[in-house]
Amino acid sequence: MPPTGLIAVNTEDCERCSDDYEDEYEFHASVCVWTRYSDGTVKLRNSNIELMDQDILYHLALGSGSHDLQEMFGDVKFVCMGGTPKRMENFAHFIMSEIGYKLPAGTKLEDISAYSYRYSMYKVGPVLCVSHGMGTPSVSILLHELIKLMYHAKCQDPVFIRIGTCGGIGVEGGTVIITEEALDSHMRNAHEFTILGKTVLRPAKLDKKLARELKALASEDDPYDTIIGKTLCTNDFYEGQGRLDGAFCEFSEAEKMEYLEMLGSKGVVNIEMESTIFAALTYHAGIKAAVVCVALLNRLNGDQVNAPKEVMHEWQNRPQTLISRYICKTLAQKGQLKSLSRGSIKSPRRFKLVQQESQAHE
Amino acid sequence: MPPTGLIAVNTEDCERCSDDYEDEYEFHASVCVWTRYSDGTVKLRNSNIELMDQDILYHLALGSGSHDLQEMFGDVKFVCMGGTPKRMENFAHFIMSEIGYKLPAGTKLEDISAYSYRYSMYKVGPVLCVSHGMGTPSVSILLHELIKLMYHAKCQDPVFIRIGTCGGIGVEGGTVIITEEALDSHMRNAHEFTILGKTVLRPAKLDKKLARELKALASEDDPYDTIIGKTLCTNDFYEGQGRLDGAFCEFSEAEKMEYLEMLGSKGVVNIEMESTIFAALTYHAGIKAAVVCVALLNRLNGDQVNAPKEVMHEWQNRPQTLISRYICKTLAQKGQLKSLSRGSIKSPRRFKLVQQESQAHE
Repeated sequence: MPPTGLIAVNTEDCERCSDDYEDEYEFHASVCVWTRYSDGTVKLRNSNIELMDQDILYHLALGSGSHDLQEMFGDVKFVCMGGTPKRMENFAHFIMSEIGYKLPAGTKLEDISAYSYRYSMYKVGPVLCVSHGMGTPSVSILLHELIKLMYHAKCQDPVFIRIGTCGGIGVEGGTVIITEEALDSHMRNAHEFTILGKTVLRPAKLDKKLARELKALASEDDPYDTIIGKTLCTNDFYEGQGRLDGAFCEFSEAEKMEYLEMLGSKGVVNIEMESTIFAALTYHAGIKAAVVCVALLNRLNGDQVNAPKEVMHEWQNRPQTLISRYICKTLAQKGQLKSLSRGSIKSPRRFKLVQQESQAHE
Repeated sequence: MPPTGLIAVNTEDCERCSDDYEDEYEFHASVCVWTRYSDGTVKLRNSNIELMDQDILYHLALGSGSHDLQEMFGDVKFVCMGGTPKRMENFAHFIMSEIGYKLPAGTKLEDISAYSYRYSMYKVGPVLCVSHGMGTPSVSILLHELIKLMYHAKCQDPVFIRIGTCGGIGVEGGTVIITEEALDSHMRNAHEFTILGKTVLRPAKLDKKLARELKALASEDDPYDTIIGKTLCTNDFYEGQGRLDGAFCEFSEAEKMEYLEMLGSKGVVNIEMESTIFAALTYHAGIKAAVVCVALLNRLNGDQVNAPKEVMHEWQNRPQTLISRYICKTLAQKGQLKSLSRGSIKSPRRFKLVQQESQAHE
């Protein structure tokens, strides 16, 4: 059984990723020793699983005995997560058009986890799009099962990305924020677990190189800012984020502002509810991960979100656009972008004409 | 602004509920002084809300400025919650038939919160059925907004009930468990909040009288046990509940069993992920609340849930049946049961015949 903490291993020991992780020494150690086979496929830090007859991933409605998980998911390279089923279904269709992925004739996307009634999952070639619900416990359950899914499916070096919404601290609504460090409500760059009644703190580290790579994909033509900063992760939307408009409020507006300004002074640029568990579990599993959120408001100006629906809708597309640029770039670098698009439509103009004609004969 | 803690108020000061809460002194104090107007309608422990122009309940897709919340929800007496949208939709249809509630001709139930993409909400006369997702943060957001909804709608003495699933400790799958006390993972009968960076412990108390009332509604003819006991609430399904089958496992089977047996020795009969926040927030709001779950397995025998789907489905109906008995009894006592059912079907036999005839002419 691997030890709880990270083991210091010289990066030179590993030819596979000494380049990739030169400035992420600890991460490198975690990746190579306990979490990868030599071909880059995901190794589990739990030896019990391989001894089990079958492993049921209840909350995904999948199982290692019932499904050929390698056949279904072996090609997954990017696992994108977000709060609601709706947002992830939208993202699945968006990324499908962005990478030019074509479904076989007569098919459409289907929610793979529909029968779990918990999470929704859509697969677009190498991209898995999964909803994670709200709050760290909900994300925790999903990540345990997704990490096991990566193992069963023998996925090679998958990247996990959370696409979310958040409240900004000193940044305007619509700003895209890439998390540099996830902090818990006690300002620790860690997530606190209770395991068999004992408190265990695990580092909530995200891949800094990936964060910089994402930042570099922001375009000067984007009519909004894309920034990197610290993210506060809370267990509540109201009192936990210093809002005055919950069912309870036992502090004054002045105390709230003092708190938010303290956060800002320590480099916190946004608040959400999932980043520490996302960072802690992916890091523990040696999986490269990033958190990209759009701010729905500047909390220094108020608590309630007042932007019109259409504006909010456009804002929520911004992190998706950034992630799409990253996925397209990575696939293109590997020469995999072109092979995905086997077109079924020869002429878009004629395609539309046929559709219109057909409707007229209804 | 009301103080944080509970104020000791002599129950005799309050004519309205001195009978109801004679053995629940602290609860009585919390109910009467800060949380109820003299007519029993819900008072908020947050004076900011009444000063606001409008209060948007984002995660419910409702607002005090946009919706006539009193007209829509003023008659609500029971707020039933459970994890998934599907379970709560099923419960809405079940309770509709149990209380004999008839919808107006040509209408069907609709998800009131569909546009939030977060929670689902169905209303069947005095019963509100809402999904709460998984984990305490998700329940926290919902409860803040539901408590505010009760206030805006001027609901009188609403009762909140969570209907869930859980792992049993020393009880067989299918056992119905009414929570007597909700414990956090440090075995405290409390929920830990972090508010403006400070740790606040709030008692996670449920109404003991209501728990006994529910227990008394178990029938000797039920082919399963209904028990009262302590419930452990965790922030994780795998490591947090001592499961060996997560993506990580850093303890042995012997350590796991020692932990589960320690829980059992302290009176814990089940483990789930929502009870402390549910108890703490309803108690703080002075709202009578209960948690009723069905065990899907006996954790002393294993980690994976192996019961066939049909069996599990039947098990999940058991807490619903108990709650239905409670709602029917309460409505009958108030003489409100009969007034709900204005029948549109005069003869069920002829109704079916007409349906069949109609289908044949398709």
